Amino acid sequence: MAELLHFPAEDGAKLESYLPPRQSAVSSPVDRSRPFVTLTFATSLDSSLALAPGVRTTLSGPQSKAMTHYLRSRHDAILVGVGTAVADDPGLNCRIADHDTGATVSPHQPRPIVIDPHDRWPLTHDSRVLATQRRGRGLAPFIVTAVRKPDAIKSALLDAHGGKYIVLGTEGDEESSPRFRWGDVLASIASNGLDSVMIEGGGSIINDLLAPHSSHLVDSVIVTIAPTWLGRGGVVVSPDRVYDSNHQATAAARLSDVKWQPLGDDIVLCGRLLS
Amino acid sequence: MAELLHFPAEDGAKLESYLPPRQSAVSSPVDRSRPFVTLTFATSLDSSLALAPGVRTTLSGPQSKAMTHYLRSRHDAILVGVGTAVADDPGLNCRIADHDTGATVSPHQPRPIVIDPHDRWPLTHDSRVLATQRRGRGLAPFIVTAVRKPDAIKSALLDAHGGKYIVLGTEGDEESSPRFRWGDVLASIASNGLDSVMIEGGGSIINDLLAPHSSHLVDSVIVTIAPTWLGRGGVVVSPDRVYDSNHQATAAARLSDVKWQPLGDDIVLCGRLLS
Repeated sequence: MAELLHFPAEDGAKLESYLPPRQSAVSSPVDRSRPFVTLTFATSLDSSLALAPGVRTTLSGPQSKAMTHYLRSRHDAILVGVGTAVADDPGLNCRIADHDTGATVSPHQPRPIVIDPHDRWPLTHDSRVLATQRRGRGLAPFIVTAVRKPDAIKSALLDAHGGKYIVLGTEGDEESSPRFRWGDVLASIASNGLDSVMIEGGGSIINDLLAPHSSHLVDSVIVTIAPTWLGRGGVVVSPDRVYDSNHQATAAARLSDVKWQPLGDDIVLCGRLLS
Repeated sequence: MAELLHFPAEDGAKLESYLPPRQSAVSSPVDRSRPFVTLTFATSLDSSLALAPGVRTTLSGPQSKAMTHYLRSRHDAILVGVGTAVADDPGLNCRIADHDTGATVSPHQPRPIVIDPHDRWPLTHDSRVLATQRRGRGLAPFIVTAVRKPDAIKSALLDAHGGKYIVLGTEGDEESSPRFRWGDVLASIASNGLDSVMIEGGGSIINDLLAPHSSHLVDSVIVTIAPTWLGRGGVVVSPDRVYDSNHQATAAARLSDVKWQPLGDDIVLCGRLLS
């Protein structure tokens, strides 16, 4: 059995105002064209997610890992790019211990959403996310792709595990660099009955969501920063440059309602994007 | 009269263990081959000091400015690169209010040290640092240069204000990119009776000091981080990539004895470089 993670209730309480409303607190059915969106990631002081694309880089401490799984327990879905899925073969499940019930499996599992325009994720029966689903410890993914007829074998595999493909149109050059409209992606998540999504990465997805054209779609940002400089050449979180009406460079994104909370040697920054 | 800045004593106390010892606390004369070195700067979340070289970028809040001047009051010298001196025409003085004496001028003024290998800083009678000295509100700079016969007019100007040139040898290509050895720079600061130096920037100086070849010369690091992403293309703090003995990329620099302290909307990170 995979080790369960513990996240102190008092630490969780400090994040509460940045999280989607608990279902018990919602008196009427949620009616939204998009889910509640939490953007969350961990960087070095020089804003790197990893030393290089596909290189697993341990940045933050064990408390931060527990926080990530606590956050997963509070969202209906978790979203990653195909690069992360290919590099890490992640379980994309929630392994937080439930202090109330003492359950040995986290009772709530988020739906993994993998953004894979070209349908290039080499998903097999042995992929960790599917093995995890078969052990009753997670859900099979929804793969968002621009390929109109996705791979039949993977499609059957997803089907057998309770996952599926979601085919969406793109903007930009469909051949070389298809790009989904975030509004479409989020609408499709909401239309599947998922009221909240935690977007975990990788770098290009994060940078795209921090940019002015999509920052209004993000409800909360939770960033963990480790007291380390990875050095030049890493996978950097830094949105494209933004110019004001006088053609002067200006800050690309700012947070309001800022809260900083130490977590071990790291700091957790919570805020909302000003748009 | 320039506005004096106020920094609460309780905020100062939180920084104490990262600052040079107070002179009253030193029982015997300090005997060091180099001064106590504090590296301090303010960045965005994407580790930018500024939107572009020479572009003054207000990142952090007013408390952070007061902290900078409090830190200046605790050091014998403050050091900046010539790029900063050229771009900002800075006063390089201390404008912190003294709560004990109610003095209208900060009683302690740090010695400005400007690293200027090519002697290119266009210092004139009207430069703010000299005007500040004439008003009794700061000291004239020591300019560290590799030019063996620095400009005679600037030399006379420095002399009249109590400043001077310090001529040092360099390593690397002396013509195109002369580079001082930090050990030499710090030894020359110490030999001038300055027991502590606060190194404020710019980017290339900070990145050089964070690198493994010089991190052992740094006693404390104090970084202020603002909850803003400046976006790609800024002046970035990120040391050169470091490889381990197996030729694998590894973290370039890490901090120990880490302390995070919120300051307005910003966070102040204090630590010591692991070498």
